[in-house]
Amino acid sequence: MRRIGIIGSTGSIGTQTLEVIKELNSEGQFSFEVTALSAGNNAKLLAKQAREFGVKLLCIDTEEGAQYLREELKDLNPEILVGEEGLCALASSPMDVLVTAIVGMRGIKPTLAAIAEGTEIALANKETLVAAGEVVMAEAKRRNVRILPVDSEHSAILQCLQGEKRAEVDKIILTASGGPFRTMPAKDLEKVTAEDALKHPTWNMGGKITIDCASLMNKGLEVIEAKWLYDMSYDDIDVVVHPQSIIHSMVKYRDGSVIAQLGNPTMKLPIQYALTYPSRVVSTVKPLDLSEIGTLTFEKPDTERFPCLKLAYEAGRIGGTLPAAMNAANEAAVALFFKGKIGFSEISKTVEKAMASHKTIYTPTAEEILAVSNETYEKVFKDAAV
Amino acid sequence: MRRIGIIGSTGSIGTQTLEVIKELNSEGQFSFEVTALSAGNNAKLLAKQAREFGVKLLCIDTEEGAQYLREELKDLNPEILVGEEGLCALASSPMDVLVTAIVGMRGIKPTLAAIAEGTEIALANKETLVAAGEVVMAEAKRRNVRILPVDSEHSAILQCLQGEKRAEVDKIILTASGGPFRTMPAKDLEKVTAEDALKHPTWNMGGKITIDCASLMNKGLEVIEAKWLYDMSYDDIDVVVHPQSIIHSMVKYRDGSVIAQLGNPTMKLPIQYALTYPSRVVSTVKPLDLSEIGTLTFEKPDTERFPCLKLAYEAGRIGGTLPAAMNAANEAAVALFFKGKIGFSEISKTVEKAMASHKTIYTPTAEEILAVSNETYEKVFKDAAV
Repeated sequence: MRRIGIIGSTGSIGTQTLEVIKELNSEGQFSFEVTALSAGNNAKLLAKQAREFGVKLLCIDTEEGAQYLREELKDLNPEILVGEEGLCALASSPMDVLVTAIVGMRGIKPTLAAIAEGTEIALANKETLVAAGEVVMAEAKRRNVRILPVDSEHSAILQCLQGEKRAEVDKIILTASGGPFRTMPAKDLEKVTAEDALKHPTWNMGGKITIDCASLMNKGLEVIEAKWLYDMSYDDIDVVVHPQSIIHSMVKYRDGSVIAQLGNPTMKLPIQYALTYPSRVVSTVKPLDLSEIGTLTFEKPDTERFPCLKLAYEAGRIGGTLPAAMNAANEAAVALFFKGKIGFSEISKTVEKAMASHKTIYTPTAEEILAVSNETYEKVFKDAAV
Repeated sequence: MRRIGIIGSTGSIGTQTLEVIKELNSEGQFSFEVTALSAGNNAKLLAKQAREFGVKLLCIDTEEGAQYLREELKDLNPEILVGEEGLCALASSPMDVLVTAIVGMRGIKPTLAAIAEGTEIALANKETLVAAGEVVMAEAKRRNVRILPVDSEHSAILQCLQGEKRAEVDKIILTASGGPFRTMPAKDLEKVTAEDALKHPTWNMGGKITIDCASLMNKGLEVIEAKWLYDMSYDDIDVVVHPQSIIHSMVKYRDGSVIAQLGNPTMKLPIQYALTYPSRVVSTVKPLDLSEIGTLTFEKPDTERFPCLKLAYEAGRIGGTLPAAMNAANEAAVALFFKGKIGFSEISKTVEKAMASHKTIYTPTAEEILAVSNETYEKVFKDAAV
């Protein structure tokens, strides 16, 4: 019996994680107990999940939400926590794995809280490693805690590294779908709307990450994550655009051999792999049939039209608080784009400007990282209002 | 210092193996000593190789060749063996790895001789496992001898299996280039010449194997090899045509994940991997650049136009001496095709006919397999003369 907690259980990754747990439990191949769940404001779905999985510890953002849960789950009488402090308390509760499916900077503190208790992390929260990779990995190493990736690219890398020696790895090659505007001329990019961007060609995901895919910032964030997860130099992390999203990423070894992981695009596979690692168990994922798919294509990313990827490499190379500032600026810029305050092409310009004016703190603490993130986010928002 | 012997050292795989050994020795990453070499009739090249690598034990097919070697290498005074008996004696000499780069049924006996001495096999001779897989694998298991594949497909499979559990393997997926006639209508296949067939699109190989690629028999033989090397059921070995030959083969796991090995088409990589396994060392292989290649395509093999693949599955499923008979019939048919005695489309018909008239012996000895092979080869030849 493995005890699982999920923060962000009502989002895209959270709900799919619960589906995977249900499938694995019913197959009898693994036995998972869901011990803790958290949500932002979807109290209704959280209550439903708590009832279905018999969860005794919950956390929600607002007192209003907590009130709803108390009434709705009166008969189950779960412990109900509220807000950021509640989230960290939940992450510190006894469990074997914490799935960090929460979006944004808010994932960092509970992740550190779980690591401090020796709880394994199934990491879906990008910001944890992008903004606080140095702090988080050092802490994980000190506590001997395993951090397993939940996104498809880093899961692919982990799979391609099985049974191989780290010293023999030459490069990590992350694949990128290229997003919905891959072939759009630069001048048309000015005019695209949030609605256009939300039509992602191969993945069905949340709103913010879909915009990040379109701008290639998502891949930039993944480059920084890969650096921390697999202790790579930025020179040895490449990105190739692969619109069909069938090859989920690759590892090139020093003998010239490349190992790749392939599959139909579904988050269920990386979620399951993180939960059952290093075992592989039967899944309901649709089997890959390459002759049915027919063609896989590859091209270099165009960092002229999509500068965010280049910005992420720059931020990562400089390090310190710069990736946190970059990420916060991007979060703010995407929010401004959703509000119609800035155009799609201005996202990268906004991030670039914020990076240029940021005074990097080297080897920062988690508190400094969070302060930089909040300040940068607010500054970008305020500047846009002027 | 690893002691290497090569049988068939003057052929395509043999010469490339020596190049790889030279590179690895000069890099100082590995240290190989070439202790024994054999050739069919290219005494001149064998003498040159013996001199370059300071080899003290040689074997050649004819007394005439042996005489040439004795004179040419007088100052080195190597031991010179002759013919099939000599080849088995050479294979039994003290060494760590025997590279079986010899073509045809003649590879079986020396391979068994080496296994009997506990010598590891780097297997490039297809017939060893196609015709005698049951005998050879049983003997290798009994002597605790490792058999490492040298061809690109089975090397890819071995690489895709690293760090994974056998029980979690669902399928092996072998890729096939599809050969030069992949898109040719059936009626035109009747008319193709040996010269047409030798223009292989992606691999530069010996004559017989190029014809086998064109007929898909090569892939059929590889299916049988994969069965023995990786203890798979024929139902769990698939073939997909992939004309660019960049993905060298794949393993599908029970969770739906597919692991693939990729690289530019060169035999040097699988040769090196077999010699340095499980380590990977720096090679001179051209690095893979997928964005430069641009497109990879996949399609189902057409067993109507290329029935040899289907015949190989049939022979493999029935087992016993039938794969040996099929293989011998194919060797004879390809020889007849080269002589202009039969057309390309008749190769598969000739093999099918030979299979239909073969009386399968189950759990045969090595001697029975060799007898069946010789008889079948001769019968096919004789029938063609009528």
